[in-house]
Amino acid sequence: MYSETVTKLINQFEKLPGIGHKTAVRLAFYILEAPKEEAEEMANVLVAAKDKVKFCSKCFNLTEKDPCEICSNPKRDESIICVVENVKDVIAMEKTHEYKGYYHVLHGSISPMNNITAGDIKIKELLQRLSDDKIKEVILATNPTVEGEATAMYISRLIKPLGISVTRIAHGIPVGGDLEYTDEITLIKALEGRREM
Amino acid sequence: MYSETVTKLINQFEKLPGIGHKTAVRLAFYILEAPKEEAEEMANVLVAAKDKVKFCSKCFNLTEKDPCEICSNPKRDESIICVVENVKDVIAMEKTHEYKGYYHVLHGSISPMNNITAGDIKIKELLQRLSDDKIKEVILATNPTVEGEATAMYISRLIKPLGISVTRIAHGIPVGGDLEYTDEITLIKALEGRREM
Repeated sequence: MYSETVTKLINQFEKLPGIGHKTAVRLAFYILEAPKEEAEEMANVLVAAKDKVKFCSKCFNLTEKDPCEICSNPKRDESIICVVENVKDVIAMEKTHEYKGYYHVLHGSISPMNNITAGDIKIKELLQRLSDDKIKEVILATNPTVEGEATAMYISRLIKPLGISVTRIAHGIPVGGDLEYTDEITLIKALEGRREM
Repeated sequence: MYSETVTKLINQFEKLPGIGHKTAVRLAFYILEAPKEEAEEMANVLVAAKDKVKFCSKCFNLTEKDPCEICSNPKRDESIICVVENVKDVIAMEKTHEYKGYYHVLHGSISPMNNITAGDIKIKELLQRLSDDKIKEVILATNPTVEGEATAMYISRLIKPLGISVTRIAHGIPVGGDLEYTDEITLIKALEGRREM
């Protein structure tokens, strides 16, 4: 149906997450009908992004300078590290404007189902950072999934012997959520985590 | 929130049709976390597509060779031209495996609302093709929208004096459609277009 080059272009778009065949075709035809400069600009930005944006050598967040803006900000609280699974989790946390410590991005979670072991994510690097005695607390903010919980458990067992406080973010009913539609596990977590008013 | 390069990358994805901000962020982070080769391959395919894929000088369909495969296929019926608005309409027609004539892609429709006049779409080029006396019929397959109808009307008035048969594709209830949910205009068209059984 489509020529070889067009098929290649469609395949490229199909590789992107959440882009199915029909959307890929639509995007490919947009590029084919767009001015040449637009396609070239997009190509350049793609390559430039990969050239310029690296992982921070300290926290493994995406950054254009190393260490990243958060790690090199002297105003941040250097006694706390918040451990998250992904770069997008850092952005979610930063949007709260509440957390002032550092981060550590694991780039995944322990998942035997997907052949991801503790060695595949940045746990070793986290332990190295903890050898610096400024750190007093590690907040485990991995996702409340089976994998995220297992990863948090694994890390907490490694850190506790070091005499560093290890905390886990609270699980419960989201603000604006409805008890009626909350699943049992979340309700149990919400009950377990109840606090004096 | 995002660094300059990341913002540029997000903006590039946001330019694509049907891609909103959240999806653009998701795609950008996919690229940032993907291996460098993958981003480079995508960039190369984008540029290659624009380099290799041109418009056919006869029918203005997208093609890697000129004239395109349809225009240069001697087995096609050279007495019929099907006029469509977009390249994707050619693909839709070809999928039927029923139509064996040539095509002519207008690249748009007359739309005073969007400042698109008859001179902005490939009508002049269509008339030039009709000077070849092999052509016996022109099928106007523009969309059944206000703009598509106006364009069909405009073209038919130009072609009729040349003694070439001008036809319009049928409008009516789609196969599998439901009378109950069919809009009035389509029902009127379906009634007007009724045929003896």
